[in-house]
Amino acid sequence: MESFHTIVIGAGSGGLTVAVGLANLGKSVAVIEALHVGGDCTNVGCVPSKTLIHQAELHGAERPASTLAEVRRKRDALRDKETHEFGEVQNLSLIFGRARLIDPHRVAVATPEGGERTLHAAHIVIATGARPRTTSIPGLPAARQLTNETIFEIPDTPRHLAVLGGGVIGMELAFAFRKLGSRVTVVTTAPRVMDKFIPEVAEALGESLDRHGIAVYAGASAKSYDVATETLRVEQGGRAIDLEGVDDVLVAIGRQRNTEGLGLDAAGVAYSARGGIAADSYGRTSVPHIYAIGDVTGTSAFTHSANAQGRRVTQRIALPWLPARAPEPFYPSATFSDPEVATAGMSQAQITERYHPKLVKRIRVDLVTQTDRGYTDDLQRGFIIVDAIRLTGTILAVTIVGPRASEMISLFTLAIQERISLYRLYRLVYPYPTFSSGVLKVADTFLRDTLTGLNRELPTYLLHRWAGGRSRGLGGGSRGTAPHV
Amino acid sequence: MESFHTIVIGAGSGGLTVAVGLANLGKSVAVIEALHVGGDCTNVGCVPSKTLIHQAELHGAERPASTLAEVRRKRDALRDKETHEFGEVQNLSLIFGRARLIDPHRVAVATPEGGERTLHAAHIVIATGARPRTTSIPGLPAARQLTNETIFEIPDTPRHLAVLGGGVIGMELAFAFRKLGSRVTVVTTAPRVMDKFIPEVAEALGESLDRHGIAVYAGASAKSYDVATETLRVEQGGRAIDLEGVDDVLVAIGRQRNTEGLGLDAAGVAYSARGGIAADSYGRTSVPHIYAIGDVTGTSAFTHSANAQGRRVTQRIALPWLPARAPEPFYPSATFSDPEVATAGMSQAQITERYHPKLVKRIRVDLVTQTDRGYTDDLQRGFIIVDAIRLTGTILAVTIVGPRASEMISLFTLAIQERISLYRLYRLVYPYPTFSSGVLKVADTFLRDTLTGLNRELPTYLLHRWAGGRSRGLGGGSRGTAPHV
Repeated sequence: MESFHTIVIGAGSGGLTVAVGLANLGKSVAVIEALHVGGDCTNVGCVPSKTLIHQAELHGAERPASTLAEVRRKRDALRDKETHEFGEVQNLSLIFGRARLIDPHRVAVATPEGGERTLHAAHIVIATGARPRTTSIPGLPAARQLTNETIFEIPDTPRHLAVLGGGVIGMELAFAFRKLGSRVTVVTTAPRVMDKFIPEVAEALGESLDRHGIAVYAGASAKSYDVATETLRVEQGGRAIDLEGVDDVLVAIGRQRNTEGLGLDAAGVAYSARGGIAADSYGRTSVPHIYAIGDVTGTSAFTHSANAQGRRVTQRIALPWLPARAPEPFYPSATFSDPEVATAGMSQAQITERYHPKLVKRIRVDLVTQTDRGYTDDLQRGFIIVDAIRLTGTILAVTIVGPRASEMISLFTLAIQERISLYRLYRLVYPYPTFSSGVLKVADTFLRDTLTGLNRELPTYLLHRWAGGRSRGLGGGSRGTAPHV
Repeated sequence: MESFHTIVIGAGSGGLTVAVGLANLGKSVAVIEALHVGGDCTNVGCVPSKTLIHQAELHGAERPASTLAEVRRKRDALRDKETHEFGEVQNLSLIFGRARLIDPHRVAVATPEGGERTLHAAHIVIATGARPRTTSIPGLPAARQLTNETIFEIPDTPRHLAVLGGGVIGMELAFAFRKLGSRVTVVTTAPRVMDKFIPEVAEALGESLDRHGIAVYAGASAKSYDVATETLRVEQGGRAIDLEGVDDVLVAIGRQRNTEGLGLDAAGVAYSARGGIAADSYGRTSVPHIYAIGDVTGTSAFTHSANAQGRRVTQRIALPWLPARAPEPFYPSATFSDPEVATAGMSQAQITERYHPKLVKRIRVDLVTQTDRGYTDDLQRGFIIVDAIRLTGTILAVTIVGPRASEMISLFTLAIQERISLYRLYRLVYPYPTFSSGVLKVADTFLRDTLTGLNRELPTYLLHRWAGGRSRGLGGGSRGTAPHV
C-alpha cells in the first residue's frame, strides 16, 4: 500500500489547486485522474469555448472547419503542457485511473492497464466535477446529440444547430456557432434564456440574439427527431413547431455531479439536499479529513469558484490551527455571450431571504445612453444594475451586461468583499471614456436620490432596518454572509 | 452689471461639472465659453479620437473618408446635444464670448457680436483648459501642420502621416491612422515613446508599432519640409533622415495652458512653478473665491481629473463648512493605443521621492504567458506591473498594458484609495478566464515571495521602513498622500 499526506481525486481546476498547493508546501500528494489533466476547463469547458468565441469573433464564417481545428490544436497543446508541468511538480504523483474510497483513509485505483493500486492518506479531497445532463429525444441518433464534451470534436460546423438550454453554456455556444455561420435555434423549457439571472439579462440578450438571427423558443421542449428530413419537432405551449434541416443538437440543460462509483457510502460521506456532496464553507464533508470542492458539491459551478475552494481547502489541510471563520465569498460569474454578462454578490433569492424588499434600492445605469464610451463605440445594449441597501449604500448584488463586463465586475467583487459602499465608489476617479465610468453614474444616482429624498429614505430605512426578509435568521443559504444593513 | 453666485470661465469638462453641480443646488451660475460647449473632450479630444479608434478597429482601411465624416457627424451631434442640454439647465446661463477678469469679483465678456458685458459673482472658477503646443518647421505649409484641433477636419486620410511626439495623443492617433490605411511615422525628441511612463510601456508599444508597420524615430526632431518632393527632413543623433511622401504632419508635442488675456494679473491670481495657475488640492488659487481646475492648472491633464477637480470645487463653494482635508487622489490614466495602457497610483518620481528603493517591491505578471485568457485570445503582449511596499503589500503604483487595461485599472484605483493590500487582493475571486485573473497572479507572486523569503523581507523592511526616499518629508509633490508604510 502506497502512503501519501493527501489524496486528491480529480485533476481539474479544484483538485490541481489543492494538489499543487500542498505539494509546494512539501506534502506528498497523489492526484488520481480518470481521463485528462485539466478537467472540464482545459478540455471541454472554458479553454476550448473561449478560444472558439475569440476565433469566431476574429474570423467569422470564413473557414469554420479550420477554426474548429485550431480550437482543438490549442486545447491539446495546453493539455499536454499542463500534463507535463504537473508531472514535474515535486512531491506530486499523478496517477491515471478510476478512484474508489474503501474507507475514510484508503482509496482503490483501477488503472487503465487493468490493475488496481491501493493508496492511503491522512486527507482525501474529492474533486471529481460534473458532466452534462443528457436527455432522450426519440429518433435522434447519438452522433447528432452533442454536449460540451463532444461539440469541440465535430469536423465542421453544423448547417443548423439546435441548442437545448438557454443557460451559460447554451448562450456562449449559440453566439459562437452563429458567428461561424451556422443557423442556430435555441430551445429552452425555462420561461426565458438565462433564467438564473435577473430578467433584464434575458431582455438584453434577447435583443442581441434577435439581431444575430438566432431564434429562441422559450417554455418549449424538443419532442422528436426525424432523420430522413432532419426535422426536430419542438413543443411550445401545446403547439408543435418543426425545426428543419437540424443536423446537430447541442444539449446544454444542466450538469450532473460525478459521485457514482466513488464509494462515498463506504467512507460515510453524506450528500447535500441540493445534490452532490455536502460540504461546508471550508470544503469539509461529513467525514473528518475528507473534503469536497468544485462541481461535485452543490455550490457554484465555475472554474474560479473551484479554484477558490481549492485554496481554502489547502489552507485547512496545511494550516489547520488557523481559525476557519472567514465566510465563503459570493462567487462572481461571467458569461461570454455577446454582450458579456457578469454578476457579483448575492442572488436575488438570497436578498429576498435576508432583507425586506423596501430596504433594497435598485440603481440601473444604461451604458448606451449614460456613458460617453457607449456613444463613441455605438454600443447597442448594456447596463449596470446594482442592488444596494437604502441609505447606507452597502452593495448587495451587481449585474453588468456589456462589452468587457467580465473585466469590470471585479471592481464590484472587491467593493462587496471589503464592504465599500456606493458613497466611497462615488469618490473614485474612473478613466474617461470607459464603460467603468458608468459605475460613477450608479454612485451618483444613488447619492442624488438619497440626499434629495432623505425625508422618504430615512424613515423607510429605519422602518425596515430590523424587519428582515422572508426567513431572516433562519440561515437558508449556507454560502456567504449577508452584509450588515 | 449682471450678478451671479458663481462665474465659470470655460465650458469644458471641468467647468461644466462645477456649473451644473452648483446650478442643481440652486445657485445662479454663468458659464462663459469662447468657442464650443464640451471643450476639448467633446470637440477635439476624447470623443472624436475614441470614435475614430473604434471606427478604425471596425472598418480598417475601407472607406477612410467616410470614417472621418462619421467621426465629425458623431462629434457634432454630441456637441449639439450638450449645448442644448446645458442651455436647459435651471439657474445656468450659458454666455458665448471671451472672458477677462477685471478684479477678483468682476468679469468682462467680449461677445461674438462685438459687445461687452460685465458680470459680477461671489465666486469665479477658471477652467479655460489648454491648447496644443506648436512648432515651426521651415518649409511646412500651415495647412499641412495639423494638431488634435484640426486633424479631425481633414477630408481624407493622409497617404503618409508624420506624427511629432510619442505621448498619449501621438500614440492613439498613430495607431488609428495606421489602421485607416495611412503610412505613419512617429518622430519624438524623447529617448522613447510614452516616456512619461515606466520603460516597459515603450517596450511593449514598440513591438506593437513595429508589427503594425509604424516607424519610430526616437531622440529625433523634424528640421525642414520640402513641398515639391513632400519630404520631411528629420535629424537623429546628427544623422539626417528624409521621410518621403509626407503629406501631413501631426504636431502632438505637448500642451500650452490657456492663461493669456484672462486678466489674471488684474485679479492677482498667481502662477505655479510647474506652469499654469497655481491651485491647491481643492482648486483654490492665491485669491480667495477664485478657483482653477483642469488643464489650465499644472496638474493632471485628463477629462476625468478635470471632472474630479470640478466635483471638489463644487463641494468647496457649496458646502464651505465641510473640512477641506481629503487629499486629492492620484489620478488614473488611460491611453487607447493598441494595446491599451492604463496606470493608477503614484508616479515613479513620487515613489522615489518618498520611499527608499529597497522598501519597494516590483511584481510583474505577463498576461500572455501567465493568464489563460492570454492563451485563448492569442494575446501578443500585455502585463500588469505593481509596485508595492515590501512585506505590507501596500500598493503604490500600477501599470497595465493589454486589452481592456482601461477597464481593469479601476480595481487598482479602488484598492489604492481604500488602502487594500495585495494580501486582500489575494482573497478576491476573479472570474475565469479573464485578464483580471492576472491580478490574482500578482498577489500570489507577492505572497509567495514574501512568505518564502521572510528572513530577507523582514529585515529589509525594518531597515528601510524609516529611511524614506530622496526628500522624504519635504513635500515635493502637492497631490495625493503617500500611503503609510
